[in-house]
Amino acid sequence: MPGGADMTLRQFLWRAENVFGDREVVSRTHRGIERYTYDEYADRVRKLASALDEFGVQTGDRVATFAWNHHWHLEMYYGVPCLGAQLHMINILLPDTHVQHLVSDAEDKLVFVDATMVDKLEGAYDADAFESVEQFVVMGDQVPDTTLAPITDYESFVESGDPDFTFPDVDEEQPAGMCYTSGTTGMPKGVEYTHKMYWAHTMSLLTGELGLRNTDVELTIVPMFHVSGWGRPFATIASGAKTVLPGPNPEPADIASLVENEGVTKSAGVPTVWRGLLQYAREADPDLSSLEFALCGGAATPKGLIRAYRDELGVELASGYGMTETTPVTHVSEHRPETRDYEGEDLLELRAHAGLPAPGVEMRVVGDDGEEVPWDGESLGELLMRGPWVTQEYFNAPEKTREAVTEDGWLRTGDIVRAQENGYVDVVDRVDDLVKSGGEWISSVEVENRIMGHEDVAEAAVIPVEHPQWDERPAAFVVPDGDVDESQLREELQAHVTETYPDWWSPDAVRFIDEIPKGSTGKFSKVTLKDEYVDDSLRERVEEAAPGE
Amino acid sequence: MPGGADMTLRQFLWRAENVFGDREVVSRTHRGIERYTYDEYADRVRKLASALDEFGVQTGDRVATFAWNHHWHLEMYYGVPCLGAQLHMINILLPDTHVQHLVSDAEDKLVFVDATMVDKLEGAYDADAFESVEQFVVMGDQVPDTTLAPITDYESFVESGDPDFTFPDVDEEQPAGMCYTSGTTGMPKGVEYTHKMYWAHTMSLLTGELGLRNTDVELTIVPMFHVSGWGRPFATIASGAKTVLPGPNPEPADIASLVENEGVTKSAGVPTVWRGLLQYAREADPDLSSLEFALCGGAATPKGLIRAYRDELGVELASGYGMTETTPVTHVSEHRPETRDYEGEDLLELRAHAGLPAPGVEMRVVGDDGEEVPWDGESLGELLMRGPWVTQEYFNAPEKTREAVTEDGWLRTGDIVRAQENGYVDVVDRVDDLVKSGGEWISSVEVENRIMGHEDVAEAAVIPVEHPQWDERPAAFVVPDGDVDESQLREELQAHVTETYPDWWSPDAVRFIDEIPKGSTGKFSKVTLKDEYVDDSLRERVEEAAPGE
Repeated sequence: MPGGADMTLRQFLWRAENVFGDREVVSRTHRGIERYTYDEYADRVRKLASALDEFGVQTGDRVATFAWNHHWHLEMYYGVPCLGAQLHMINILLPDTHVQHLVSDAEDKLVFVDATMVDKLEGAYDADAFESVEQFVVMGDQVPDTTLAPITDYESFVESGDPDFTFPDVDEEQPAGMCYTSGTTGMPKGVEYTHKMYWAHTMSLLTGELGLRNTDVELTIVPMFHVSGWGRPFATIASGAKTVLPGPNPEPADIASLVENEGVTKSAGVPTVWRGLLQYAREADPDLSSLEFALCGGAATPKGLIRAYRDELGVELASGYGMTETTPVTHVSEHRPETRDYEGEDLLELRAHAGLPAPGVEMRVVGDDGEEVPWDGESLGELLMRGPWVTQEYFNAPEKTREAVTEDGWLRTGDIVRAQENGYVDVVDRVDDLVKSGGEWISSVEVENRIMGHEDVAEAAVIPVEHPQWDERPAAFVVPDGDVDESQLREELQAHVTETYPDWWSPDAVRFIDEIPKGSTGKFSKVTLKDEYVDDSLRERVEEAAPGE
Repeated sequence: MPGGADMTLRQFLWRAENVFGDREVVSRTHRGIERYTYDEYADRVRKLASALDEFGVQTGDRVATFAWNHHWHLEMYYGVPCLGAQLHMINILLPDTHVQHLVSDAEDKLVFVDATMVDKLEGAYDADAFESVEQFVVMGDQVPDTTLAPITDYESFVESGDPDFTFPDVDEEQPAGMCYTSGTTGMPKGVEYTHKMYWAHTMSLLTGELGLRNTDVELTIVPMFHVSGWGRPFATIASGAKTVLPGPNPEPADIASLVENEGVTKSAGVPTVWRGLLQYAREADPDLSSLEFALCGGAATPKGLIRAYRDELGVELASGYGMTETTPVTHVSEHRPETRDYEGEDLLELRAHAGLPAPGVEMRVVGDDGEEVPWDGESLGELLMRGPWVTQEYFNAPEKTREAVTEDGWLRTGDIVRAQENGYVDVVDRVDDLVKSGGEWISSVEVENRIMGHEDVAEAAVIPVEHPQWDERPAAFVVPDGDVDESQLREELQAHVTETYPDWWSPDAVRFIDEIPKGSTGKFSKVTLKDEYVDDSLRERVEEAAPGE
């Protein structure tokens, strides 16, 4: 059969070692700042693979990590898959019950744990859930006092490994990695990434205006325990760029110092990180001028933040979009030909879009009836994605797969979006949080953002409440900022919403509370609101109101 | 099994149509300059696929083209593969016997022929060789007077096609394209490109310093009948860049006018093209300032040419490397971190290198003993390549496959190269043209280039001649520039070579002739020299000389 070689991560490792062997990996660890070259990196990756091989790790075995971003984790990113085994990155922020579910569901054979996270893992340990685990390894050169057993340290574990180890031939369909969804509703679901999926995703991260090049210095702030660090550790190495890893629980001062000292040109993180760095920069005035692009994802990028980065720091903040099921990046807010001369507000809007679809993926925006809605900057629909790095299966969960993946391979993202005529996409809500009112859709996120824009409001969340005539109507939960006249504020908020949105988008009930309940990642827990905060009086209030009143 | 969607060309077509539907295809045809948008392009691609489908073209059937670069050819680049059929691009410069071999070897079902190439194809027509051909189609809206039959014109052929045709699901392992090697020794060999190979190659053309972006305007001068136009027609569409196609037999004035009028930013062609454009530019002074990068491949890029483009035109000429068997591009002469500040001679040298290996491929430089030689800027070895877009098979030729592809999937390129420590590769010769003297290698190309650098020499070619003691020794065939004293020039040339190279690299025999014999692509035909120009007196002369004398 005609064809080329299988697509595997080994090809990227080969290039880093042989073509960019003198480029550096800089790693902030619990021991301090450490550095070595890709030459040494590749030797250590082979030592690790060889040690795992000696331990008895076989093709398809799962090796878990419970760790921040540092060189040990990076060695595992290539070492485990290039041996033919599968890297399972556990999110260290999950509740203990979820960690137990993950380890038992994935049947991890070894668990490599950050030196700073041993206590947390010990807390999550459960003999039944961890039954498959034969070895714990602490990422560092010492083992702290712990009940986890058997346990050794990383440097001792790899000591006997062979730096000249030859990787076996690995099939491109072999799963190389695994992450679980954050599971805001129910237990997390597993997603497996084959070598081919990672290969394709990696190539896509090297393309376009924001693509990584060998001349870049990349600081990956997004945790490597979170959706493969958005795939940037793979892509940085494939491009030949210098890798900078910010280590355990990096503070804004740590990030600023790495940018300054290492000449970071590109970086990636969530809005919270960029907000923190901005605040720090305003106080401490570090030199961040080397930074060309900061990719912002995981949640919508506020325009104010983009403006502040551009005006105050000379850094271009640009949004990206993706999810665990899509490896994750499918969209970035890069320029198009006709936007190149954009300035001011237009450019802010451009960079705030979730982005344009990357080369290699296809997308659809689909309405309630399953038909595509127009890309007109107005129509809302659920985003469906398909492509070589878009999963078509959940691990161990055929029913969830059937719910999420169509027969012809489209993944239902569960995100409600609006597409511009020229392809830029904005995420307006989750399908589950949408208010479906009389056959029309109301974005709870847009309404609550509007409410939070009122000066007397600290926080607000909007949820759908059942309605006999309209199916659903919106209700708002509001945390006032200081002492307010509640009934006056209620009226003001309804008027405030209808200033920007149609009358019928205005919530029929506004209830004041002390705090919005939140989940493990700090996001509003709308499930809790729906389950525990909706009572008969609220339902009655909603039923009695006419939409737009 | 976990995984994403198959990698097919349809994904790139989807993006051009839906995200960059307003970008243009500009096509110089025998009718003049024509233009339409990717929106219309996609409709016409579907009409073509639908018409082929109606005609009875099945999965795997071959559809041949015999054509220059224009929108009809571009429609076939996507239309034929997206239907699941295979596009066979016949090199229109081949001798008739080769064309006959190709059509009969590939069993082409339809042949689409350029309006300007009907006569040439008619000349190559042979009823036996063309037995599989059921239909000829002239690319245009008219059929000229011809004996080719049955024949129709492209516009009539697609007229009944459905612009809403739905492409079938195509497997990524399905061959999408086919080209034949130029066959300087013996009959051309077929190379098939699967969707996956094209997909991977396309992504690689979007990466790095020279990668295509949506903001680019690409003029592909390298003929689309030559190794899929170096894959640039696929990549231009995938990136969302504007496509400019220079049509039949473009003259330098045509190219200059397209660059000027369409704002071309990137282009690709062989040194001869760039030489011709330079000469024209010196006379006509067109405005080529929009051109950022001109990729130069197919033969070594002379430093003088790179210098002239930079100094006189403000255009950066950069080399690339590849071959039919590698889809073709595996190397481009892009910057590395430490070369960014290069100027003058250093930068010339950088852009003259065949290039750095692209992300996704692996390479080896292997000596006579099969062992890798060091990347030290000196050691010579054969280049071996492996990767997702490097073929592991010749079509219909298992013996040739066994000769060229190792058991673990490495392709022997037949090119002798020298690698720098930092990964830049220079091609110094073909394996077959190498002079193997006493266990050491002499590059015939470097010696003949050195000889051609002498002011009294118009052309020169160096070939190996058998030698009883040294296995082989070099002999030079020289075309003098005007009247010369042959015996004096002979001595001068030998001294001229040893000024730069070791004594033993100097040719033992120098024979003066009127013209170097050339092959169909204009390259020196060393086969002819070896077969017809080496006589006993030359052999004796070589035997009697001591190396370095």
